[in-house]
Amino acid sequence: MTGNHSNGKTIMTLTGNLFIAGQRRSSDERFQALDPSTDKAIPEPGFAIAEPADVDAACEAAEAAYAIYSNLPLEKRARFLEAMADEIDSLGDTLTERACAETGLPEARLTGERGRTVGQLRLFAQVVRDGAWQGVRIDNADPDRTPPKPDLRLRKVPLGPVAVFGASNFPLAFSIAGGDTASALAAGCPVVAKGHPAHPGTSELVAGAIMRAAEKTGVPTGMFSLLNGTSHELGTALVSDPRIQAVGFTGSRKGGEALMKVAAARKQPIPVYAEMSAINPVILLPSALESRGDALAQAYVGSVTMGAGQFCTNPGLVLAMQGEALENFAEAVGDAIHKAAPQVMLTHGIRQQFGAGKAELSAETNVTLLGEGVAPSNECQSSAAIFRTSAAEFMKNPSLGEENFGASSIIVECDDLDQLQSLLAGLEGQLTAALHMDEADYGMAGKLLPVLEKKAGRVIANGWPTGVEVSHSMVHGGPYPATSDPKSTSVGTLAIERFLRPVCYQDLPPELLPACLAGQGPDGAIRLIDGVWKI
Amino acid sequence: MTGNHSNGKTIMTLTGNLFIAGQRRSSDERFQALDPSTDKAIPEPGFAIAEPADVDAACEAAEAAYAIYSNLPLEKRARFLEAMADEIDSLGDTLTERACAETGLPEARLTGERGRTVGQLRLFAQVVRDGAWQGVRIDNADPDRTPPKPDLRLRKVPLGPVAVFGASNFPLAFSIAGGDTASALAAGCPVVAKGHPAHPGTSELVAGAIMRAAEKTGVPTGMFSLLNGTSHELGTALVSDPRIQAVGFTGSRKGGEALMKVAAARKQPIPVYAEMSAINPVILLPSALESRGDALAQAYVGSVTMGAGQFCTNPGLVLAMQGEALENFAEAVGDAIHKAAPQVMLTHGIRQQFGAGKAELSAETNVTLLGEGVAPSNECQSSAAIFRTSAAEFMKNPSLGEENFGASSIIVECDDLDQLQSLLAGLEGQLTAALHMDEADYGMAGKLLPVLEKKAGRVIANGWPTGVEVSHSMVHGGPYPATSDPKSTSVGTLAIERFLRPVCYQDLPPELLPACLAGQGPDGAIRLIDGVWKI
Repeated sequence: MTGNHSNGKTIMTLTGNLFIAGQRRSSDERFQALDPSTDKAIPEPGFAIAEPADVDAACEAAEAAYAIYSNLPLEKRARFLEAMADEIDSLGDTLTERACAETGLPEARLTGERGRTVGQLRLFAQVVRDGAWQGVRIDNADPDRTPPKPDLRLRKVPLGPVAVFGASNFPLAFSIAGGDTASALAAGCPVVAKGHPAHPGTSELVAGAIMRAAEKTGVPTGMFSLLNGTSHELGTALVSDPRIQAVGFTGSRKGGEALMKVAAARKQPIPVYAEMSAINPVILLPSALESRGDALAQAYVGSVTMGAGQFCTNPGLVLAMQGEALENFAEAVGDAIHKAAPQVMLTHGIRQQFGAGKAELSAETNVTLLGEGVAPSNECQSSAAIFRTSAAEFMKNPSLGEENFGASSIIVECDDLDQLQSLLAGLEGQLTAALHMDEADYGMAGKLLPVLEKKAGRVIANGWPTGVEVSHSMVHGGPYPATSDPKSTSVGTLAIERFLRPVCYQDLPPELLPACLAGQGPDGAIRLIDGVWKI
Repeated sequence: MTGNHSNGKTIMTLTGNLFIAGQRRSSDERFQALDPSTDKAIPEPGFAIAEPADVDAACEAAEAAYAIYSNLPLEKRARFLEAMADEIDSLGDTLTERACAETGLPEARLTGERGRTVGQLRLFAQVVRDGAWQGVRIDNADPDRTPPKPDLRLRKVPLGPVAVFGASNFPLAFSIAGGDTASALAAGCPVVAKGHPAHPGTSELVAGAIMRAAEKTGVPTGMFSLLNGTSHELGTALVSDPRIQAVGFTGSRKGGEALMKVAAARKQPIPVYAEMSAINPVILLPSALESRGDALAQAYVGSVTMGAGQFCTNPGLVLAMQGEALENFAEAVGDAIHKAAPQVMLTHGIRQQFGAGKAELSAETNVTLLGEGVAPSNECQSSAAIFRTSAAEFMKNPSLGEENFGASSIIVECDDLDQLQSLLAGLEGQLTAALHMDEADYGMAGKLLPVLEKKAGRVIANGWPTGVEVSHSMVHGGPYPATSDPKSTSVGTLAIERFLRPVCYQDLPPELLPACLAGQGPDGAIRLIDGVWKI
């Protein structure tokens, strides 16, 4: 990638090379970026494929950079994250246009996603400065106790180099400088990113922005590398490298489970934070369904079809009690879905799998196709589909509860609250669970909340699961298989905790204590002193 | 177990039955408790062996109790933990005498351990009341933003039923009502305990105390069960049960790794918190070694031989630079170890394995036996042993870095600081790393700290690793294989976090919000409101 300035805007020419700790690396063999709206290669020299030596070099550099990067003053680390945001902002349309070409996602969506990406980097800069993430605890010594009580001081330190896998469906917010990278770098962990092969040009542009930010803020370049490739072996080699200490992944259940196996089989097993698979149940309670079924139907179809349904939080399952209100809702959904325009999906593979999933559901006995979107005008588009079945059938047939990634959803009719509760209790873990309700429904909602809390990372009232706020209180997580670790989130500031571990210092002389543990801890940062919280 | 009062003291008669949610269960086949000082059975009817139906019943009861127990008012949960402590206290000598008979540990040690056990239950009661563990975060809504910002509220909820494995070496502090149980119950998780077969009577006494505390405080009895048995199948069945959501284990690396495999192979994998294997390096820096080598030698032998060396934090590795000071230290160690009395070990199996480990080390070329303790007067005792080798040899031979559970340690002579650093960098993860130093050593210590932080959960200055304070700032954890999860601790109040997961509530009406999330969160408990910490 080379840059020159014209009218104050940086024009980028892609080179297709890897980034290994600030150095560019080429390869003899290269792969092409594909335009999913034509399935044709985007004409350009193509992208270098990382070899085992590249994985080794990137991990070696990350390990070396860890010692320096993890000990930078917090202000410097925060400024680096802000500089990343600035550099990504200054890529402007170059970035969103490239991402459009590689993903088929509309420009407005990608402009929004760029905003989310830089916003999340700036939010993590605040988190770094705040210092609460260090988790400082001090228990002062008591030499007069029998036995004498030692001086104990705890802080959290970064785990070490983190492997981040770019996601196909969020080419910016969950790829090279996305949530996993932002939270790992905020924690003080170097990142070795594996770019998703569906958007290598987008990855290169963002990696270039990271490198420029590192140069401008004087951060060691080894704290970031970008590896590209099209084989599973690359990911396996990266997760197997003994210097890698944690993994961030957003993608399919199959992909996440494969990485979990690799991580568990290491001599030193490491945590994998995989965000994988969910159908995000939405429950329409009777009074709400009665009073505003039409509006719910419009909003439902809007949520299902948004971004061709390629969201982890797509509402794949709608539950309601049988009756006239449900019939009216279903009719309105049928009307709305018939008007839904066909859309380009992220990749040829995703499109094929989505089509196969729809065909399988259509072939199920006791499952009816409520409606399909407008037929595609070419073979590179897909149309949305909404199905319908009974709770008894849904509970009998586990395949109906599996995610079909794309604009597909199933409406399930329940006989009564008991049956609805049984169905929910039998679901696998979910990212979200939503309840549409009026005040008259609160009693029923109160009965459902315990099972929803148990099944999901986020419980939503009167909203749809798509749309994930990046904030302090967000949980984008949930029990298996929504994620591999229900104790974490991959969106929001709590995500930093995935990459930290506590270390206790016993009787260390003040001269040798880390700065944040000196005296009674850092003023202004939340900390626990002799069992009492202080700010 | 039946109890009657005599002179204000509760006299307990063991029945050997299991506890399944407040009910006692017997079995046809029974096993005997053994006295390790004689290898003979303690005369009594023996102990029931849990069958698959018992595992099922205990897990079913735990699952049912979860809904109630996890939602008790915090004050009630805290009082239950305190009542457990009171009931264990009131067992008095009955408990310590039984534990002595089953473990061969001296009475003073067990009295101390009982104090630690009840102290840790009372400390967790304070933690429950404090409420900070709920991790409350609130981001208030902003309907005027484009798009409108939802109301988001986060709290941590208990994971669900937890399987706790009793440890052989801490029959009280890490068994039935030990650290794992205390932190799981504090988090709101029911516990299904698997008693260690080496001290079933001790387990029964403690389980009875838990049940009496539950009755007195009105806590559902399903939140605790005790299963006993002698086969690995029992542990496998327990960890495989789909209702179990996490595992606490302290024991051998082999045992911990077996449970990790079972947990990872489940349809829904679950976290295993296994505290397994460490040799806890102790570094004697030159000035300290020169100025107080004799005192260090005495303290070292004291730490190695304490409790027959059966501590996770036993100092199995001492590192120092070559020279006269090291020779003087080694001579003093040799003198001291020769006087160490032989001791009864916890079980026949541990004693045999320890003996085999000593024999293997003695047979290594380039490893010398610096000295052994007084020879045993009977075959049920073991004597301590301290070995010596060079850093070059230690780095060449990985078996020298493996834990030999018992009073065994190796002194390793390093050529210089570089070689010491290389050796440390090659070590596996550790629970602790200790530095003995005078002011003149601080420069060298500063160079070593980064590698010690990376390798261990606790860094100790001028102390020995045995002796683990139960407090807010303690970390009894560390990188693999010291534990299976370096992000956690099994001692100290931070241990509660192992059993919690965050849930976010979006736009939930106040009527349906959990109490701790109402308004601007609970006054007095630390919480994050719109990015600002409040107390």
